[in-house]
Amino acid sequence: MDEVNKGTNKKQQLKLITLTSDFEKQSRGVGSMEAVAYEICPDAKVIHLAHGIPDFGITEGANILETIKRSFTGGVGNYHVCVVDPGVGTPRKAIIIKTKRGDHFIGPDNGVLIPAARLLGIEKVVQITNQKYMRQPVSPIFHGRDVFTPAAAHLASGVAIESFGPEIAIKDLTPPPYEDAKVLMKGKDGKESIIEAQVIHISKFGSLGVNIVASDFDQFPLKLKEKCNVIFKGVKSQTVPMMFATTFGEVPQGNPLIMKDDYGRLEIAVNCGSFAEKYGVKMKDKITITKV
Amino acid sequence: MDEVNKGTNKKQQLKLITLTSDFEKQSRGVGSMEAVAYEICPDAKVIHLAHGIPDFGITEGANILETIKRSFTGGVGNYHVCVVDPGVGTPRKAIIIKTKRGDHFIGPDNGVLIPAARLLGIEKVVQITNQKYMRQPVSPIFHGRDVFTPAAAHLASGVAIESFGPEIAIKDLTPPPYEDAKVLMKGKDGKESIIEAQVIHISKFGSLGVNIVASDFDQFPLKLKEKCNVIFKGVKSQTVPMMFATTFGEVPQGNPLIMKDDYGRLEIAVNCGSFAEKYGVKMKDKITITKV
Amino acid sequence: MDEVNKGTNKKQQLKLITLTSDFEKQSRGVGSMEAVAYEICPDAKVIHLAHGIPDFGITEGANILETIKRSFTGGVGNYHVCVVDPGVGTPRKAIIIKTKRGDHFIGPDNGVLIPAARLLGIEKVVQITNQKYMRQPVSPIFHGRDVFTPAAAHLASGVAIESFGPEIAIKDLTPPPYEDAKVLMKGKDGKESIIEAQVIHISKFGSLGVNIVASDFDQFPLKLKEKCNVIFKGVKSQTVPMMFATTFGEVPQGNPLIMKDDYGRLEIAVNCGSFAEKYGVKMKDKITITKV
Repeated sequence: MDEVNKGTNKKQQLKLITLTSDFEKQSRGVGSMEAVAYEICPDAKVIHLAHGIPDFGITEGANILETIKRSFTGGVGNYHVCVVDPGVGTPRKAIIIKTKRGDHFIGPDNGVLIPAARLLGIEKVVQITNQKYMRQPVSPIFHGRDVFTPAAAHLASGVAIESFGPEIAIKDLTPPPYEDAKVLMKGKDGKESIIEAQVIHISKFGSLGVNIVASDFDQFPLKLKEKCNVIFKGVKSQTVPMMFATTFGEVPQGNPLIMKDDYGRLEIAVNCGSFAEKYGVKMKDKITITKV
Repeated sequence: MDEVNKGTNKKQQLKLITLTSDFEKQSRGVGSMEAVAYEICPDAKVIHLAHGIPDFGITEGANILETIKRSFTGGVGNYHVCVVDPGVGTPRKAIIIKTKRGDHFIGPDNGVLIPAARLLGIEKVVQITNQKYMRQPVSPIFHGRDVFTPAAAHLASGVAIESFGPEIAIKDLTPPPYEDAKVLMKGKDGKESIIEAQVIHISKFGSLGVNIVASDFDQFPLKLKEKCNVIFKGVKSQTVPMMFATTFGEVPQGNPLIMKDDYGRLEIAVNCGSFAEKYGVKMKDKITITKV
Repeated sequence: MDEVNKGTNKKQQLKLITLTSDFEKQSRGVGSMEAVAYEICPDAKVIHLAHGIPDFGITEGANILETIKRSFTGGVGNYHVCVVDPGVGTPRKAIIIKTKRGDHFIGPDNGVLIPAARLLGIEKVVQITNQKYMRQPVSPIFHGRDVFTPAAAHLASGVAIESFGPEIAIKDLTPPPYEDAKVLMKGKDGKESIIEAQVIHISKFGSLGVNIVASDFDQFPLKLKEKCNVIFKGVKSQTVPMMFATTFGEVPQGNPLIMKDDYGRLEIAVNCGSFAEKYGVKMKDKITITKV
């Protein structure tokens, strides 16, 4: 009995449905999805992971979903809905991705779910075609409410992933909006290595998220407290030298730094300031990192 | 026993209290109302339907509440609080509207609750006067926290609507900020009919919500894929021809379209763009629709 | 049995964890903290009290937390997390303040928690040092997720405050960003008294919150409906005469007024308008109030 309880305990009771969208924050679209989730699965907890993503911002949305690996430890019992869906109303597929950790991602097949799902290991992908698990009539322009959130809530209620529709091969999915940056090994012992990367997030504070995986960065020949050059190729081409630090406070106020972020990638920031504003950087700008 | 359980099942367990306001999104006013709801009715679920409605925006607030008909199926057990309340502190009444579907609307008697309540059928209106169900002392400027939300939470806890105060005749309510647009039948077989309408919502994406009921629009002599002229009479007078479509993807990117929205009315949009910005349209602008 | 139930009833079931931050509203940081709270304490309810506080806005954050005294009646079972934390990554302490009413405040030792905690009476302060109650590995830049919210959730789950770390003397805490304004008694019978105060909040509507405690204001020789002069010393020096009113509607539209706010302090506003915009007032501007 105790053994059984161990297995079915707490973990099974906690059903988290997260919602992420390019809808306006705290707007009726967001509230509608929350209501649908509770109507179908009253014992789930709905968490608004992020809304107000720039319109049709697949890059930004994909990056925000990456948060899940580090901030959610649940895995099993976690259902993540993402509605950044410029293709709604076209024949783009609605999909569920089951990951090896147990998390499920639900949303459009436009690449937005891939980076976050890859971080947890993609196990299986299913297309949502079963009308039974959609809210009827299905709005041609609001699949977040009528297709994706219902799927998440039905999964949370115990419906098997196979019930939603046919399996899709991973290779047939729409590719993600960005791949991980690669460290290009150059020079003797890699001492002249460079990284070609891209801005995939700009925070409220004006800090940049870049598509470099923290563990990949460890291969780059740069030690903590050393400086690197970050070359920006946006509107304005410029080279900004900055320290590789653990946190903001290690550089004087107003100075730039590069550090590991909270979610497994690298972040470029200014201590107590906005990097994006100070240096005129925009989303998707390309950057190159070299040793000083 | 089973019979009893059937009756008291799921549906009764799900008590949804929705909050809509012109307070800043995720601000202390919003958080305060959520706390009050849980303190009075701990087993309710609070959903933030929409906040950040333009200050004193009765038209916009009324339109947002209309969402409830389509996005919430509950009816019984659903309590919708709306705090767009420029008259707080004046003798305007605080009211509860019970609808035929079972939803209750709670807020000021300034017309903001009427359009949404009408969609569900107004059954009964009660003025909130019983101090027992208010949070004491009642702030003269924050009835959302001290009058409306407590009323919703007490209703959710099982207090009868009659306990809150005297009944009010529907005809004595403050009229709504807009009425439904009418199709004016003209010409032989109605072939020259026009619609005089008004912008009652502008979304984050710049799409316009108009006060035309979708089923009324079906009387207008326009078939899917056909074009109509939409004449705007705001700051800039202009005629915009556009296709009547089911969804965005049916017109080329950047092109305008008119379609049924997710909530029972008509929407005017640009595929992958902002109609409001492109054509300089503002809230409450008058429009006329004619056949091309 | 009944006696036992009385003691363990409702009150114990209601565990509220509130979150306040300078993170972007409905952003991944906010969603991450909510997830952590539920993972540790599934039967708590998470309330977003306020987010989007101006970056590093300790004054604004402190003022917003003051809401708790008036809007939350719980005390016991209420855990308030505040993440306005420019010092994250420096040796600033993480603390829990237990108040006499029973509320706990959890956040950085930078003064932001003090004004709200003082209103409820500070009983005890503990530094959070026990790694066992932190989320591992602790991010050097996101203590909201890995230190503060876990502490709140563990407290809500029944962990004793003493378990988190050593007690700190109240006098050793970093001082608050503002003190209460004092009424300076002058003239015969205090008839020429003045108040030297400061703007500590500006609402979405452009109303000013000032650091005057409502009950202190009662000492000022001004009756309801009488006028006072409010002298602003910001960018633009100016004297604005205004009525002391109970609520907006007591002055004509567009006119200024001073009144008690919903949370225990004074508010300066314009009926149906924005005071801050009309008079060019900014956060932290100094003001002097005199009788006309």
